[in-house]
Amino acid sequence: MGAREVGLPTVVESREDLPREVTIWEVGPRDGLQNESSVVPVEIKLEFLDRLADAGLRVLEATSFVHPKWVPQLADAEELLAGLRRRDGVRYPVLVPNERGLGRALAAGVRHIAVFGSATESFARRNLNRGLDEQFAMFEPVVGRARAEGLDVRGYLSMCFGDPWEGAVPAEQVVAVGRRLLDMGCAQLSLGDTIGVATAGQVQAVLAAFRDAGVPVDALAVHFHDTYGQALANTLTALRAGVSTVDSSAGGLGGCPYAESATGNLATEDLVWMLDGLGIRHGVDLDVLVGTSAWMATRLGRPSPSRVVRALSG
Amino acid sequence: MGAREVGLPTVVESREDLPREVTIWEVGPRDGLQNESSVVPVEIKLEFLDRLADAGLRVLEATSFVHPKWVPQLADAEELLAGLRRRDGVRYPVLVPNERGLGRALAAGVRHIAVFGSATESFARRNLNRGLDEQFAMFEPVVGRARAEGLDVRGYLSMCFGDPWEGAVPAEQVVAVGRRLLDMGCAQLSLGDTIGVATAGQVQAVLAAFRDAGVPVDALAVHFHDTYGQALANTLTALRAGVSTVDSSAGGLGGCPYAESATGNLATEDLVWMLDGLGIRHGVDLDVLVGTSAWMATRLGRPSPSRVVRALSG
Repeated sequence: MGAREVGLPTVVESREDLPREVTIWEVGPRDGLQNESSVVPVEIKLEFLDRLADAGLRVLEATSFVHPKWVPQLADAEELLAGLRRRDGVRYPVLVPNERGLGRALAAGVRHIAVFGSATESFARRNLNRGLDEQFAMFEPVVGRARAEGLDVRGYLSMCFGDPWEGAVPAEQVVAVGRRLLDMGCAQLSLGDTIGVATAGQVQAVLAAFRDAGVPVDALAVHFHDTYGQALANTLTALRAGVSTVDSSAGGLGGCPYAESATGNLATEDLVWMLDGLGIRHGVDLDVLVGTSAWMATRLGRPSPSRVVRALSG
Repeated sequence: MGAREVGLPTVVESREDLPREVTIWEVGPRDGLQNESSVVPVEIKLEFLDRLADAGLRVLEATSFVHPKWVPQLADAEELLAGLRRRDGVRYPVLVPNERGLGRALAAGVRHIAVFGSATESFARRNLNRGLDEQFAMFEPVVGRARAEGLDVRGYLSMCFGDPWEGAVPAEQVVAVGRRLLDMGCAQLSLGDTIGVATAGQVQAVLAAFRDAGVPVDALAVHFHDTYGQALANTLTALRAGVSTVDSSAGGLGGCPYAESATGNLATEDLVWMLDGLGIRHGVDLDVLVGTSAWMATRLGRPSPSRVVRALSG
């Protein structure tokens, strides 16, 4: 008999202040699939989204309107959104890089977008082909128009905890860049450890810097990659600092095609296991989710990097 | 350029009380290799131990005197110890199950042993073929004689956070069983999550129960498996509770042959990455250690499960 049959993990609420409820921002369909070497057929993506909604996830980042030349894996964004069986109570944000992308998103009926900025000059130049100031010049009309159209806007901020070209990233710099996105009209900032190098003290320090700058913790989400195995420990640290929106990817799919050694996102299943043990509500049925990731792993032809998926679907 | 070239992780000491120094109890040569399907040649094991000492590890659990019928992978314990190039300042504890094993260990010149007990009746019966009381009856003369001979004795306590047959394990039961091992003469207890199901709140609760029972935190070590991806988050939680001895396995080798879905130990490299980021001293040279695990992975014919090893040796 395996561990799962006896109803583990044991629920033991932490003695310290932790959020009672966490919103899981599922990025697998976008951040996961954009990094696959092969293009996943649109009907598989649609089934993936359906199954993730069945599992109880309430925020599904569905696709991206980045130019298909850069992300051919998501070139089917219009077709996907046209075929999407939207559920009540489920949000389907999409990534939008610029005004042209926003136009495509609006035409497809999108109500929730995310822009993708860099906390460092070097990554802005590598990823967006422009410096930090030009990055904001590009986002300003996108966020402005989106807000005018009544859309919710999230701002991703990558390389918040280390940059492969610049090394350490000062917390003050992350806060300064983040504030510009918030001031522009982003309702939430997702602080990304794009190359997965962050450790717990750094997570504390960056979140404390935002707090000291007067940014409410509810405006912050965390987005960790597991390149160095730190993603869940960093997430726990962020929860302790009051963060209650956590980005993760079903089965641990994902990475970043423009940053060396960036491997998968935090696996949603590994996060759910921890939240279950801590008695923190999240609304996800772990068995349905594991079944979904196991199914997707078969479609992709390789095992899921999620430890929970491997333990429970073996 | 990869992350490593610019000296990451960024060191940011945590604002909270954490140990300034951690003793890493390296279990790869024993807990790792005893779970390999093939028997590793003794000369490879000796080179592994040499390289681990070169990497700066100061406690190397070298082998086990469990009957070769049960653990044929470590049947070469005498030959290994005879060939061991002992270093000044490095301890080489070995696992000893009973009086016969102790006799073999003493004959081989061992100065530091560990006994391996269960926190639950069910696992004691499955792993040791005897109940909890019989388990202690077996250990008592072993620990007594070892102490009389001037040996250091560690007590492993498995299934402290969940048992595949019993489910949840009450913290009071773990403390009661642990106390018996300490009272018997064990200098340190290693609290094992043998099936890797523990989450952070439970780790806090078990450590608090030991504290409330008057057991000094210096007498405790933690031993986490990464079956559900929780090992490093749980370790961080234990450090925050004052634990300063952490068991881990180079490259994440290991598991438990008698418990379903028990996969690898916490990888020493992933632990070192976190400790480095937190500014906690440990004495290990990460590059030498990664090189060692990459070399061993080649010998074993499969990739290391450590994220850090994969990121840095790719």
